[in-house]
Amino acid sequence: MSKNLTKRSEDYSKWYNELVLKADLAENSSVRGCMVIKPYGYAIWEKIQKELDAKFKETGHYNAYFPLFVPKSLFEAEEKNAEGFAKECAVVTHYRLKNDEKNPGKLKVDENSKLDEELIVRPTSEAIIWNTYKKWIQSYRDLPILLNQWANVVRWEMRTRLFLRTSEFLWQEGHTAHETKNEALHEAKLINKLYEDFVTNFMAIPVITGTKSDSEKFAGAEETYCIEALMQDGKALQAGTSHFLGQNFAKAFDVKYADKNGNLEYVWATSWGVSTRLMGALIMTHGDDSGLVLPPNLAPLQIVVVPIFKTELELNNIKDYLKPYINLIKEKGYTIKIDDRLNFKPGYKFNEHEIKGVPIRLAVGNRDIENNSIEVFRRDLLLKENINIENLLDNIEFLIRDIQEKLLNKAKAFQLNNTKEVENYNDFKKLIEKGGFVLAHWDGSEETELKIKNETKATIRCIPESNSKTGTCIISGKKSLKKVYFAKSY
Amino acid sequence: MSKNLTKRSEDYSKWYNELVLKADLAENSSVRGCMVIKPYGYAIWEKIQKELDAKFKETGHYNAYFPLFVPKSLFEAEEKNAEGFAKECAVVTHYRLKNDEKNPGKLKVDENSKLDEELIVRPTSEAIIWNTYKKWIQSYRDLPILLNQWANVVRWEMRTRLFLRTSEFLWQEGHTAHETKNEALHEAKLINKLYEDFVTNFMAIPVITGTKSDSEKFAGAEETYCIEALMQDGKALQAGTSHFLGQNFAKAFDVKYADKNGNLEYVWATSWGVSTRLMGALIMTHGDDSGLVLPPNLAPLQIVVVPIFKTELELNNIKDYLKPYINLIKEKGYTIKIDDRLNFKPGYKFNEHEIKGVPIRLAVGNRDIENNSIEVFRRDLLLKENINIENLLDNIEFLIRDIQEKLLNKAKAFQLNNTKEVENYNDFKKLIEKGGFVLAHWDGSEETELKIKNETKATIRCIPESNSKTGTCIISGKKSLKKVYFAKSY
Repeated sequence: MSKNLTKRSEDYSKWYNELVLKADLAENSSVRGCMVIKPYGYAIWEKIQKELDAKFKETGHYNAYFPLFVPKSLFEAEEKNAEGFAKECAVVTHYRLKNDEKNPGKLKVDENSKLDEELIVRPTSEAIIWNTYKKWIQSYRDLPILLNQWANVVRWEMRTRLFLRTSEFLWQEGHTAHETKNEALHEAKLINKLYEDFVTNFMAIPVITGTKSDSEKFAGAEETYCIEALMQDGKALQAGTSHFLGQNFAKAFDVKYADKNGNLEYVWATSWGVSTRLMGALIMTHGDDSGLVLPPNLAPLQIVVVPIFKTELELNNIKDYLKPYINLIKEKGYTIKIDDRLNFKPGYKFNEHEIKGVPIRLAVGNRDIENNSIEVFRRDLLLKENINIENLLDNIEFLIRDIQEKLLNKAKAFQLNNTKEVENYNDFKKLIEKGGFVLAHWDGSEETELKIKNETKATIRCIPESNSKTGTCIISGKKSLKKVYFAKSY
Repeated sequence: MSKNLTKRSEDYSKWYNELVLKADLAENSSVRGCMVIKPYGYAIWEKIQKELDAKFKETGHYNAYFPLFVPKSLFEAEEKNAEGFAKECAVVTHYRLKNDEKNPGKLKVDENSKLDEELIVRPTSEAIIWNTYKKWIQSYRDLPILLNQWANVVRWEMRTRLFLRTSEFLWQEGHTAHETKNEALHEAKLINKLYEDFVTNFMAIPVITGTKSDSEKFAGAEETYCIEALMQDGKALQAGTSHFLGQNFAKAFDVKYADKNGNLEYVWATSWGVSTRLMGALIMTHGDDSGLVLPPNLAPLQIVVVPIFKTELELNNIKDYLKPYINLIKEKGYTIKIDDRLNFKPGYKFNEHEIKGVPIRLAVGNRDIENNSIEVFRRDLLLKENINIENLLDNIEFLIRDIQEKLLNKAKAFQLNNTKEVENYNDFKKLIEKGGFVLAHWDGSEETELKIKNETKATIRCIPESNSKTGTCIISGKKSLKKVYFAKSY
């Protein structure tokens, strides 16, 4: 295990915070709650972006860009949405600074530059976008509109944690407009499925899916579909949401279209997003006591080579020895690099690449050249073996697939082992205390939900679509249509 | 020429504004000075981003992300930089809204949420980044730092125009830190060269390059390298800048490194950027009275096919006829689409693709099938010809290269024809009135520069590196080391 990294079993939260810093992913900035995403962390985010962006485009979506600011009068138009975000809004009130006569060299806000109307830094873009769609939509011919934007948003959070909850974060937000309710519902579900597929198969993070309860759904939505992942400390993490917005925004912004018969109808809407929070899910799903563990799909560097040498001549010999194999590996599209830094010792390099989660580490010294061998280390299982260098490419190809697969399987097994069904509130309380998902019957009332939350800190993470065995609520004894997933959450 | 588009010769400025809207590139939003970049415009911006990003990475740069907000105390640390941007800063002063009791359903700023220190929405990120670099840099081993970020920035402009000058715009900003002055100078020049190469060879926009005069350089820079393009109305447009920042930010933020001997030295810096303004350069360099003209490198859709049909059977016949050729074209990596919309007539489609600048348009009707032919239209020259469909792929490959090349050559010829040298102020005034670059001797004083600006509205666009014939200033008659480029500008 890595030097100086707290063990997960000692203090999971501390382990997370240390890992984010030590793996060089992100750090806090001098702006309250805002993070600096460091190059290594950003390179992983770029891999997430690239893959998701391709999936959005494949399913007919286009990117666009809408303003950072939302005038207050637009912001408040959809009341539930406004209410949901009002308490965490950064507000721009002035547009100029001037010299502070009392403090030479310092600046102060120029009171003469007060804005007639305050601008809200977008916490989400439904308001500004629907105000724009109003101009774009007249007829059924203008529909559907299937747009996405990659952007920064600001929610003034009181307690922040790198990636998991920051005042500014990066995300994508899709905003679509449709002729019919069914079409919009289909879109919201399609995207939730796309998120599920991406997070499971690309990030190797298994999720449960379903809808949110009324109290947990997006402010302004009729229905929120979601994917929820389970972290190693037994807490759930909401990894993505896709909202069926009904006609709420169309009504708030008066967006109607003429159908084929010339009748005016309100437009149906969806919105959906995932954010840099996925980085938190990634770290907490796969990380171990030695640091970050990256699925090969997300690793900015998939294979690192640490040469063991004393002289420059030895280093050059090692490079000559490796060259043909490295070329083959590169040709196959893998990223590989020789860490030939002179001012760091092999042990230091091993530790650094371990904590940064590089999936495969190769080590080569003089004796390997003599023996035609190479040491191969896989980060996920912390296993190393010596192989004949002739087999290197085959071995790499196997490991890239196998690490991706095993990480998913391991996380799936963890989720399965930590998902329990209960029939009564006593068992519920015992299990929820241990962590994990607990499936239990719920009568569908906000009252029951709140009582459980107050007494156990657990919330309904999602209402699954499939499970449909009726029963009785563990609290009220009333009729329940299906069991729902509870957990404590991030 | 396109219906309803003002001619360039009638009103160039009106032509530009109309084109941006009619080609579906962008539009004004309900937020003063902020634009909505529409999907078609954004798709072009994505092509710019992708190519530039690859070039930055090839030259050893990494992406990262820094906060949107800059606390006022950091913002004012580098005095010249602060002074340069103070008058156009959006300022966040509060972090919460509350219900407005007097207006049910409305919100107002919660006065209890006033920030202790105001936050500036970044107009540029030197301050927040150098405050971060202070933590990252201790020793020469930590250098160089070669980072870039893709981000939105806000400069509260009084007069705005889509893409050319907007209160919020998208850009990339590179920020590098170096051990030595020479290394930083080399970096600043390298990036200016990279910009020149990209804008010339990828965007087909020729530029002149050099440094800015003191009055035109970036606030906080020691030297600003720039690329300047010439628009069809004879005005110059600053297309990119790369700044050698000396040790100004290192001193303002106290960033020192220990060199190999253990001596503490201030770090040397550069910063550099291009923005969505490049979209304006693109439109104004290549556009004509029929609309946008896109170099194939930047066209989201390179080839569009307009089928001429009356019945669905005819449409299907046309599709069958085209299929093998379209597959070949796609295999070569070109983007091609059949515009098979049923509710639009061919004439409407021709006009739409013309105004959107699609480089190549193909048209196919029944008679073409009989004759084994296809109509090929090239947007740049507005020329069409009928060819044997067997030659389609060869023809496309030729046109893609030829259009890209001819657009550059045409723009180069325009720039050459509109760049004149003068020896006295009378000739200067006559030529500058006509537009274009005017090369003239200048004594290097701010006084002379200001006099010329006041009397002619022309500014020094750049001081070329190479030209080094001495002479006498056209205003003062004092000694001048070289002729410099003057022009009126955007």
